[in-house]
Amino acid sequence: MIKMVEGFPSTFGDDYQLNTNEFIRYAATTFPEVEVISRNLDGTLMRYNYEKAYARVGKLANALKKLGVKPGDRIGVMEWNTHRFFELYLAISGIGAVLLQINPRISDEDRSYVINHAGATVICISESMVSLIESVQEELDNVREYIILHDEKQNIIKTKLTPAHDYETLLEPESSQYDWPMINECSAYSGAYTSGTTGKPKAVYYSHRTICLHTLCLSTLCSINANDVLMQIVPMFHCHGWGVFFCAALTGAKLVFSGKYTAEETQPLVDLLISEKVTMTCGAPAIFMPMLHYIKTLKDKPHFNNLRMLSGATAPPVSVMKDYAAMGADIIHAYGATETTPIVSLNFLKPSLAHLPEEEKWALRLKQGCPVPFVSWKLLDGNGKEVPRDGESVGEGHYRGPWITASYYDDERSKDAFTEDGYWKSGDALTMDKYGYLKVTDRFKDVIKSGGEWISSIDLENAIMAHPHVVEASVAGIPHPKWEERPLALVVLNNTARDVTEEDILNFIMPKFAKWQLPDRILFVDAIPKTSVGKFSKKDIRKEYGNFYSQQ
Amino acid sequence: MIKMVEGFPSTFGDDYQLNTNEFIRYAATTFPEVEVISRNLDGTLMRYNYEKAYARVGKLANALKKLGVKPGDRIGVMEWNTHRFFELYLAISGIGAVLLQINPRISDEDRSYVINHAGATVICISESMVSLIESVQEELDNVREYIILHDEKQNIIKTKLTPAHDYETLLEPESSQYDWPMINECSAYSGAYTSGTTGKPKAVYYSHRTICLHTLCLSTLCSINANDVLMQIVPMFHCHGWGVFFCAALTGAKLVFSGKYTAEETQPLVDLLISEKVTMTCGAPAIFMPMLHYIKTLKDKPHFNNLRMLSGATAPPVSVMKDYAAMGADIIHAYGATETTPIVSLNFLKPSLAHLPEEEKWALRLKQGCPVPFVSWKLLDGNGKEVPRDGESVGEGHYRGPWITASYYDDERSKDAFTEDGYWKSGDALTMDKYGYLKVTDRFKDVIKSGGEWISSIDLENAIMAHPHVVEASVAGIPHPKWEERPLALVVLNNTARDVTEEDILNFIMPKFAKWQLPDRILFVDAIPKTSVGKFSKKDIRKEYGNFYSQQ
Repeated sequence: MIKMVEGFPSTFGDDYQLNTNEFIRYAATTFPEVEVISRNLDGTLMRYNYEKAYARVGKLANALKKLGVKPGDRIGVMEWNTHRFFELYLAISGIGAVLLQINPRISDEDRSYVINHAGATVICISESMVSLIESVQEELDNVREYIILHDEKQNIIKTKLTPAHDYETLLEPESSQYDWPMINECSAYSGAYTSGTTGKPKAVYYSHRTICLHTLCLSTLCSINANDVLMQIVPMFHCHGWGVFFCAALTGAKLVFSGKYTAEETQPLVDLLISEKVTMTCGAPAIFMPMLHYIKTLKDKPHFNNLRMLSGATAPPVSVMKDYAAMGADIIHAYGATETTPIVSLNFLKPSLAHLPEEEKWALRLKQGCPVPFVSWKLLDGNGKEVPRDGESVGEGHYRGPWITASYYDDERSKDAFTEDGYWKSGDALTMDKYGYLKVTDRFKDVIKSGGEWISSIDLENAIMAHPHVVEASVAGIPHPKWEERPLALVVLNNTARDVTEEDILNFIMPKFAKWQLPDRILFVDAIPKTSVGKFSKKDIRKEYGNFYSQQ
Repeated sequence: MIKMVEGFPSTFGDDYQLNTNEFIRYAATTFPEVEVISRNLDGTLMRYNYEKAYARVGKLANALKKLGVKPGDRIGVMEWNTHRFFELYLAISGIGAVLLQINPRISDEDRSYVINHAGATVICISESMVSLIESVQEELDNVREYIILHDEKQNIIKTKLTPAHDYETLLEPESSQYDWPMINECSAYSGAYTSGTTGKPKAVYYSHRTICLHTLCLSTLCSINANDVLMQIVPMFHCHGWGVFFCAALTGAKLVFSGKYTAEETQPLVDLLISEKVTMTCGAPAIFMPMLHYIKTLKDKPHFNNLRMLSGATAPPVSVMKDYAAMGADIIHAYGATETTPIVSLNFLKPSLAHLPEEEKWALRLKQGCPVPFVSWKLLDGNGKEVPRDGESVGEGHYRGPWITASYYDDERSKDAFTEDGYWKSGDALTMDKYGYLKVTDRFKDVIKSGGEWISSIDLENAIMAHPHVVEASVAGIPHPKWEERPLALVVLNNTARDVTEEDILNFIMPKFAKWQLPDRILFVDAIPKTSVGKFSKKDIRKEYGNFYSQQ
């Protein structure tokens, strides 16, 4: 609990609670006619509008109540980016229950852990993912109902799950009039589990207040308005898709749900961006880079209409940003985590820096950007002292604020993850420069400790990935008999350039580093191990190559 | 107290309080270099930036604490739109104390009532307004210190107020480092008194939470960002200037304080708009119309750079909006009150209405616009039933939300002004059309009741004011022996057209009204009585002309 000063009483409606259903109520009242589009599994598009979405959300809330869903219940959802996921977010939270986000990409073991740890009583599953729940059904302790989500009404659902309801059949008889209660804004609206590179996934439960404030702030920072068309690319099971769909409802922007997609098949995403005249989307290099590869195969290059592409995770290579910029799309680097809802910083070019040389501006745009309002932050060195804002001194990012988690739910690891004054220790190593821009130099645990010095694994990765024949690269610190750790690089080359050598890569990156910072070895591999959310799994790399330098 | 549902506990920082000092802390950290400009009494400009403003706010908070100011204290301020007012808003609320807004345009009697009712202990006054406090000094019950605000450091302040401190002298020795406490967000940040057309002024006390949410919402709705230049025209003692200066700090926009100005001398405002390349401002027709008259005297017409002019009170004549539009400035009609912080609705053209014929769009833009998110609203007829949204049915606007007051402080009139479920009864008569746009047709008490029918006084006024030779017009319902009330119009003509007759005016407006809706008489006068905030005082008109029809 934060210590606070009590002042004079206000006369205002301070007990009026910030509830997430405000977004759809507002959109349906003020922008009933604005389109909401959702891509079906067969690639066709479902089109309706905020008024119709609101009516279906009302039906869904009534149906869930009839199934016995009560305030505080946890309802698991495993679905692609569809209008149904949107409806579920609003109806479940509109009862005062909690939407539990289930990431379909985690292991069976983790999936049943998440569902049981949350105590979910109902699970809603896309028909295309039913097998992922069937395989763990025996392990689930509290689940008493299943709801199958699909594009067309089906009379017979083929599943071993029981009892299994049909989403559309549940909705059909219900009234669209739902008596929205006012919900304590500190109640959970949704739960998410971090991907957990070590140990079991950790749970955070976002409050209604968190989401309302985050949506207002993100909408302000991105200047989202009714002229925008927002497309949901970040999966809605991953940090609630950053809540971009709520920004659309808040501002009356047209909203596009991208359905099911993969990094191997990005044409549908590119087609939607163009056909729906999307002006803002959100994703990560892991999807924006394959999209660019696809676009490069097109005869007629598309021109995007001032598209803003919010990009999380690590920065994409500057060449990717430039290629998009040439087509009228602006990659805007953002930074955060599941624990931060996620926005901690956003990279917009401050007008006062417009005079910088072009290349300096590009270098700046690769950084994580400026911290956002209402987030208190500190960069602390190993002794808990704030580091200078010189763009060089590295500190661990500590964050506190209305959309930063203050604990992990029912998890002993909370005590190590938060400071006494309530800051979340991100584990990210960052610098802050004189212009006010944060840069993530590494995960604290991935910094390579070599002979008493630190080497950023991310800087090496980015430098290698800029090589024209490199598809992916990951660098990890591997135990070394003499230097404690030394960098080892794993590199995936593209198909057209199998004659690239280790020396070529080293020569390519050499100008940017001191000699002792270069990897001792570069290994060409077919694939780099990844986590369930598509990040390089350094844990797996260190496991597989742990003896590499000691055996040489 | 609103009844609410309790859900599952959130893990997030829900106890992190929304405090207004967040705005300056953020601006000083992320946009330290961005300019803040303030017009001095002698017309010269003071220029500094958010970093320097923050340092002075720190000094001021330390100085006020040294004077004994404690959390909950009420500190009166009477000042023009200056950087000092900005500093006072932040420093006073940063202690957990309350800035009491004192309108210099109210009577001595009301002024001492306001100061005593609030229990203010310190008063900060512009040197140019000292006499307005001197004249009531004897009446003030709790004031123990005065602080004189002025442009240049002065050693001798000529005032009978005692003890009187000098603002700059107080600041000088203090440290700019201030230890900002976290303040309960439901504590009052500022207090304002309504102008009170009947009875004593009524008090509302805005909370920190109110202001933070209002600022976020207004910034989103107006798409304010770091490329903007905001100029504060609405007086900062009038509904805290709508908090436009906070929108600037939140978004890193350049900020211009307009200093002291009058409707008779608008050149300084116009000059500032042009010289500082202002992109957004806020005001009312009472100032935008005189500004236009001044601009029309210029040989070279200025071109504004997509200037958005938020305009409160009644709509300006469409000709004024068109004249501004021709110069690149967009008048955006907004609606609210001191009790609503103020934003209740905002008139932006929804993209779905872009196809409407031009004249229909102009007609739409004269309305009060679409209700904003997070404000619950109802239009209720005389029986407490919601009226249809048909653009014709008139109801009283009832509002509830995080920035709507839920009571008047220490005032028995509260019990009549709020409904049982916590809505504020605005006293405004409105319609809601099929597009979602509110229109204020009148004050409920100013609707003219004639032979069992209602006539909108505002519609008549707007029609008359569209006449090219009319400067101002006000229409009031005057008791009538046969019809209960009949409209009487008071009209101020411009200097060049003294031969305009009553019949000319009636002929001019006739096409827009049924015959029985027309005023029985039009009187040409030199001036129309106004309230302290510049609105037509129908109370005074009815008082002066109460027997007009009964004596005829």
